[in-house]
Amino acid sequence: MKSITSIKNPAVQEARALETAKERSRQRAFLLDGEHMVGEGLRCCPERVTAVFVDEKRAEDYHALLSLARCEVYAVPQHVLGAISQVKTPQGIAAVCQQPQARSLAGMGDRLILLENVQDPGNVGTVLRTLDAAGFDGCVLTPGCADPFGPKTLRATMGSIFRVPLCTVPDAAQAAQALGQSGYAVIGAALDGEPFYQRGALPGRVCVIIGNEGQGITRRTLDSCTHRFRLPMHGGAESLNAAVAAAIFMYELMNH
Amino acid sequence: MKSITSIKNPAVQEARALETAKERSRQRAFLLDGEHMVGEGLRCCPERVTAVFVDEKRAEDYHALLSLARCEVYAVPQHVLGAISQVKTPQGIAAVCQQPQARSLAGMGDRLILLENVQDPGNVGTVLRTLDAAGFDGCVLTPGCADPFGPKTLRATMGSIFRVPLCTVPDAAQAAQALGQSGYAVIGAALDGEPFYQRGALPGRVCVIIGNEGQGITRRTLDSCTHRFRLPMHGGAESLNAAVAAAIFMYELMNH
Repeated sequence: MKSITSIKNPAVQEARALETAKERSRQRAFLLDGEHMVGEGLRCCPERVTAVFVDEKRAEDYHALLSLARCEVYAVPQHVLGAISQVKTPQGIAAVCQQPQARSLAGMGDRLILLENVQDPGNVGTVLRTLDAAGFDGCVLTPGCADPFGPKTLRATMGSIFRVPLCTVPDAAQAAQALGQSGYAVIGAALDGEPFYQRGALPGRVCVIIGNEGQGITRRTLDSCTHRFRLPMHGGAESLNAAVAAAIFMYELMNH
Repeated sequence: MKSITSIKNPAVQEARALETAKERSRQRAFLLDGEHMVGEGLRCCPERVTAVFVDEKRAEDYHALLSLARCEVYAVPQHVLGAISQVKTPQGIAAVCQQPQARSLAGMGDRLILLENVQDPGNVGTVLRTLDAAGFDGCVLTPGCADPFGPKTLRATMGSIFRVPLCTVPDAAQAAQALGQSGYAVIGAALDGEPFYQRGALPGRVCVIIGNEGQGITRRTLDSCTHRFRLPMHGGAESLNAAVAAAIFMYELMNH
């Protein structure tokens, strides 16, 4: 274990910089903030964790966790950890993790969610958590989505960020078209679609598209879908939360 | 329309005080913040809206909305509206709305959600929004839940707060027992329950219980359930978000 005492240390500076989406993209890395996330990272993909920072007074508390690290571990004073951490009351540990290698759409698996400009980090994170639990295979994102490696998204994933295959595509409509041509049922969740619970048989490969919280799926992308389905909407409710809609589609498709 | 120029005006003071759960409970009222919420309130239950505050420079923009008001409308300078509003960049309008009359558990309808100590306001609000859309009849809450009339909850309900019957019970276990004795299937969402998708026929009256985000349903309440079901959980995911679990149960029960 090495000691760092200054915020100006380059390793600390790099970790701090990860608070912005731009730097996360440039470094292709993200911050694991607190015991739960560092633990998930070190257990799921220790080879991707490149630096661990631990409060010098609490290194012993984290002994078991630190023994999993295959990288440099830095003991730092509390104020340095406070500068790295993005939460108000930092826990005693944080780490830098490389983002997974970029995947191509073709290798993403049989059951996919495509998020088109889903902007709320809590929604993106909750979709990844639910997708992992439902047994779907991966998540396709557009550049207009909340950064899956941002702090709020990561918290909402509850660790699923380390298990769910991700792929970013420049354009949802093109991706939908490509998937349709590869035999996927490309399902647009649309208020004017067919009733979902009266659907006929679907092929084994499906991609459910969830649109932006305010605007829904863009017209171009809807036009590239092979199916448009709506969920029943009673009462005066106009729509469902994006993560809730994704969950209902996934659990229904996996279990009926 | 009356003019108010000072934050010290008693009507303004009462509206401002609604930012705390304690005052919301004491006044049995809550704040409608912004055009969407004021609009929903004035359309759904004009008789419960007791005061409207509008930016004096924007009263004309809100002419159609204000014509729905059956109460006093106050024209106020921007800084007074800023003091009433609970968001950083207030819109030009806010209002005070009385909470609906307290209901008894017996009159809540056939398809209920019971939230036991669900603490996140976004989760409580999203459950109410989904319940409204799914066609469930009402929501039972315990005192440990996030205040359904708090600002974050209200935003997440997207207006469903005006349509969903609510009832607060002192104790979830007692409520579960009473519902069971009245012929409800009282369903506890539990990781060690029976597989939900292999369930047999259920009675027409159901109550799904969703527990706290960290702890789940308390042991006492689980013991009072007539059924315990688990949702399939693949991958390394340990649980679902509370609002997501509620949504999957509701849409499945309503549509199969």
